[in-house]
Amino acid sequence: MQSKKTPLVIGLDPIYSRLPPAIRGHRQMNDEFDAAAAVDAIFDFCTQAMRIVAPIVPAVKINIAFFERYLWEGLESYYALISEADDLGLEIVGDVKRGDIGHTAEMYATAHLQNSELTGLEDVLAPDAITIHGYTGADGIEPFAKMAAAQGKGVFVLVRTSNPSAGALQDFKDSSGQALYEKMAQVVGEIAGRPEYMGEKGYSDIGMVVGGTTPEATTSLRSKYDNIWFLVPGYGAQGADAVDCIRFCKPDGTGALINASRSIIYAYEKPKYKDQFGDDWKKCLEQAVVDAKIDLSTAMQSKL
Amino acid sequence: MQSKKTPLVIGLDPIYSRLPPAIRGHRQMNDEFDAAAAVDAIFDFCTQAMRIVAPIVPAVKINIAFFERYLWEGLESYYALISEADDLGLEIVGDVKRGDIGHTAEMYATAHLQNSELTGLEDVLAPDAITIHGYTGADGIEPFAKMAAAQGKGVFVLVRTSNPSAGALQDFKDSSGQALYEKMAQVVGEIAGRPEYMGEKGYSDIGMVVGGTTPEATTSLRSKYDNIWFLVPGYGAQGADAVDCIRFCKPDGTGALINASRSIIYAYEKPKYKDQFGDDWKKCLEQAVVDAKIDLSTAMQSKL
Repeated sequence: MQSKKTPLVIGLDPIYSRLPPAIRGHRQMNDEFDAAAAVDAIFDFCTQAMRIVAPIVPAVKINIAFFERYLWEGLESYYALISEADDLGLEIVGDVKRGDIGHTAEMYATAHLQNSELTGLEDVLAPDAITIHGYTGADGIEPFAKMAAAQGKGVFVLVRTSNPSAGALQDFKDSSGQALYEKMAQVVGEIAGRPEYMGEKGYSDIGMVVGGTTPEATTSLRSKYDNIWFLVPGYGAQGADAVDCIRFCKPDGTGALINASRSIIYAYEKPKYKDQFGDDWKKCLEQAVVDAKIDLSTAMQSKL
Repeated sequence: MQSKKTPLVIGLDPIYSRLPPAIRGHRQMNDEFDAAAAVDAIFDFCTQAMRIVAPIVPAVKINIAFFERYLWEGLESYYALISEADDLGLEIVGDVKRGDIGHTAEMYATAHLQNSELTGLEDVLAPDAITIHGYTGADGIEPFAKMAAAQGKGVFVLVRTSNPSAGALQDFKDSSGQALYEKMAQVVGEIAGRPEYMGEKGYSDIGMVVGGTTPEATTSLRSKYDNIWFLVPGYGAQGADAVDCIRFCKPDGTGALINASRSIIYAYEKPKYKDQFGDDWKKCLEQAVVDAKIDLSTAMQSKL
């Protein structure tokens, strides 16, 4: 993150029907309903997109659901993409939102955080960090935290999401006025603060997912949890602006990964970029990343 | 469920190191760290177990984490097991605990509830029902509900889990004394009650996961949500007894699926069964199912 000088993370949630015609129209990859063709097209698109963004952003967030939709064929492609990202020097957040307790959680943690040691799969890399659900409490967080620490990786627990109906549950308040998401942050913060999970540079291996669309309600988390990385979805397509998102960064620029997905990877659909670069979807994507970096950087400067 | 006259569901969460020696010792399946061998052993064990239980229980719950641990090799095996279960006439609950919003939730719902129509994967069946997280609120439940209704299937949303630390969040109370799990039940109940999700016999396609270990706190849900199926984990190894669990059944015996996993599938480790059947793990398993059925039936009789 330091070397790329931006908190921007590019989210990959590839949908076949929105892939650029240049990829969808490929002789072998022109069938949305053929699992192999669709998976190849998605893999190709993501790989090319990552080659463009690798020199200019520190990390990608890969949304496993868009691969899981193609069952085990998709899952194989998901792990292959992680190796590609690693080769490109990108940090990888696996957006898997798994959540369970005890032995089941250990199994999920093994699948999604441990670089495989299984014969036949020993070259497979797992992401550098993943997202998880924390609804079951500490029992559901600790097995992931332990695996993350053992592998030198990270975990982001969902604390406050940015979707419209999130508040109905996450803003549920107790008699003292504490909201559920604050209680969730407290549970996460207690685990994150333990010495065994404290990584380098004063940050814990355990972070929080907090949406950028609720800045008033959530920026207090930044000051309250000094040792926490925040993964911030919602920048771009979901309606959070740069000023909202940048609140999660400390003055030195660290402390937040700000994710933009659709606004970047489908930039070639926007008239703004189409007019400038025509059918060159890669140039559209690259320009959208550059624009987002400038947008965040400007917001950061005005905050300081 | 009606024809098998029991609410008992057998949970399959197969761990290689606990498989019976007869399977682990098989020439081609005797290597825990070889992905193909381990997956074969687990698949073989689960298939044999299902053949035993199919005539005497209505459903199995397959925990995907224990397959996902073997990455895409495991996932292929998971779906193959669902087809086997279907051939045996079992209903299948996919214990996947996915949870996300919008388009991502649609992708998960497609992967886990829609029988595949993809070329190359068109024979693949998805489970009859799955478990999901509801922390993101209605936005995270509705895409799954819609897919379940379209496919004639079901969804169980985590409301109150049975693990020790669950209470820290799920019993979080507002100023009126309503606990978070009750609020979650309310969000689920509102969706479940919509006409488009009302299935046959007065039950909704949308159910709730409520642990058997907190009977005082949760049996009120049974009377409050008349049209809800409850999936009840915790019977057996996790410490809930038959009387606790049977509270979720209505007087006609419907309304709950009571799950036992480890206490059944690893019955051959228990002296009680070992003494009776020696190394015959299948007889141990069968007897454990019969005993559990009688236990639940006795509890049901004494309740009426």
